Amino acid sequence: MDGLMTLDRPEEDAPAHAVTGTLYGVGMGPGDPDLLTVKALRVLQRAPVLVHFCKRGRRGNARTIADAILRDPAREMALAYPYTTEIHPEHPDYVAALAAFYDDAAGQLADHLGAGRDVAILSEGDPFFYGSFMHLWRRLKDRFPVEVVPGVTGMSGCWTRAGTPITWGDDVLTVLPATLPEAVLAERLRGTDAAVVMKLGRHLPKVRAALAAAGLLARAVYVERGTMAGERVIPLDRKPDDEAPYFSMVLVPGEGRRP
Amino acid sequence: MDGLMTLDRPEEDAPAHAVTGTLYGVGMGPGDPDLLTVKALRVLQRAPVLVHFCKRGRRGNARTIADAILRDPAREMALAYPYTTEIHPEHPDYVAALAAFYDDAAGQLADHLGAGRDVAILSEGDPFFYGSFMHLWRRLKDRFPVEVVPGVTGMSGCWTRAGTPITWGDDVLTVLPATLPEAVLAERLRGTDAAVVMKLGRHLPKVRAALAAAGLLARAVYVERGTMAGERVIPLDRKPDDEAPYFSMVLVPGEGRRP
Repeated sequence: MDGLMTLDRPEEDAPAHAVTGTLYGVGMGPGDPDLLTVKALRVLQRAPVLVHFCKRGRRGNARTIADAILRDPAREMALAYPYTTEIHPEHPDYVAALAAFYDDAAGQLADHLGAGRDVAILSEGDPFFYGSFMHLWRRLKDRFPVEVVPGVTGMSGCWTRAGTPITWGDDVLTVLPATLPEAVLAERLRGTDAAVVMKLGRHLPKVRAALAAAGLLARAVYVERGTMAGERVIPLDRKPDDEAPYFSMVLVPGEGRRP
Repeated sequence: MDGLMTLDRPEEDAPAHAVTGTLYGVGMGPGDPDLLTVKALRVLQRAPVLVHFCKRGRRGNARTIADAILRDPAREMALAYPYTTEIHPEHPDYVAALAAFYDDAAGQLADHLGAGRDVAILSEGDPFFYGSFMHLWRRLKDRFPVEVVPGVTGMSGCWTRAGTPITWGDDVLTVLPATLPEAVLAERLRGTDAAVVMKLGRHLPKVRAALAAAGLLARAVYVERGTMAGERVIPLDRKPDDEAPYFSMVLVPGEGRRP
């Protein structure tokens, strides 16, 4: 794989017999670069095109995880989401803008792949677990070879740093996006043994109310930037209802069988 | 850390001023050794005592994952579970036997830790996610320094190899042990967007019935030995109701928002 060189050549110069490149979804883990897998490292070191998602004008978090190992800006491609402020994700304007963004990004990646260059998409946590990678995968998987490298999820990183097992014995674990309506959150939380609530953002007051309704508030732990600089682990009842950063979640550890 | 040498010395020779060893829980990932993290590798290479769980007379799966990197039997300690055939895990005899087993194992590890030797417990997947490690951690965590290295879960390995994202957009994911009663399984499956059913063993007919009751059977995928030799991925409706091996699970991929 000598793709590093081909990046400087215009598309037209790619030889007609070029083998198609492979699309890699690379799980970057929860934040600490030491939690990258051996396989992820290998793909990151070799792939001629490294793609990360970001907000306009900012570096993506997946890219930041790679700081320790990536030192060649010529290989990098940043995909900036169309909005920096949040619109409701089901608003038709937002869906249309996102769809156009993913279509355009997929087109750019298809040019590289078609010219025989492997493309690695850096994905926070695990690529197939709520990953933006999936939206490009869906558009490209029938045209190009794909390989997904699973990663340590953000939630594993958080419960590890919170110092608490999440599930014991026959515990049921429920993973919920905080973006859901309060009634749905409470309904799914009721009767679960353990829970992880992701994508907190400005939804903390709603999540707190749903946890209280389900009788789980006393056990809830708030984790911010688990495994990263600026990490914070506190009982949820000591966290104010201000906005939570993107890399934060609420954990409810299970209390199952412990022989 | 020169603990490799100290293994050959009897306990009594350990210097009185020895620093206490650290207990490591090392996530071994889903099976493919390339899915070990950089941090896990480092701990495995350095720790003087490497512990794995196994059935009597067999090698443990976590130990098998380490085959590619461990070549020093003098560092290894196997902990054989008291039963090789399954008794109901809530049967008092089983609970008592397991408790005695964990107490005894914790005692052996405490001897090493007290003598200043780091101990690494090899844990399939992620140590704090249904891990046997947790039972030793619980017994030792207040007496010795502990560090847990999160790993790629078995379920991430399975959905990766099944070639399917597990959660999109606002999908709710429910993780269930197949050991639960059918009514509980069906109740928790009803209304979830995505599901993972673990610990299948001889529970496949029950799991199938619960998935059918929840209307999820058509989407269910059976994955055996994901990321390992002998891997199998098939729609659940093509898998007979015979016993499933330990390393198998049923996935129900979510179908959420896809702009």
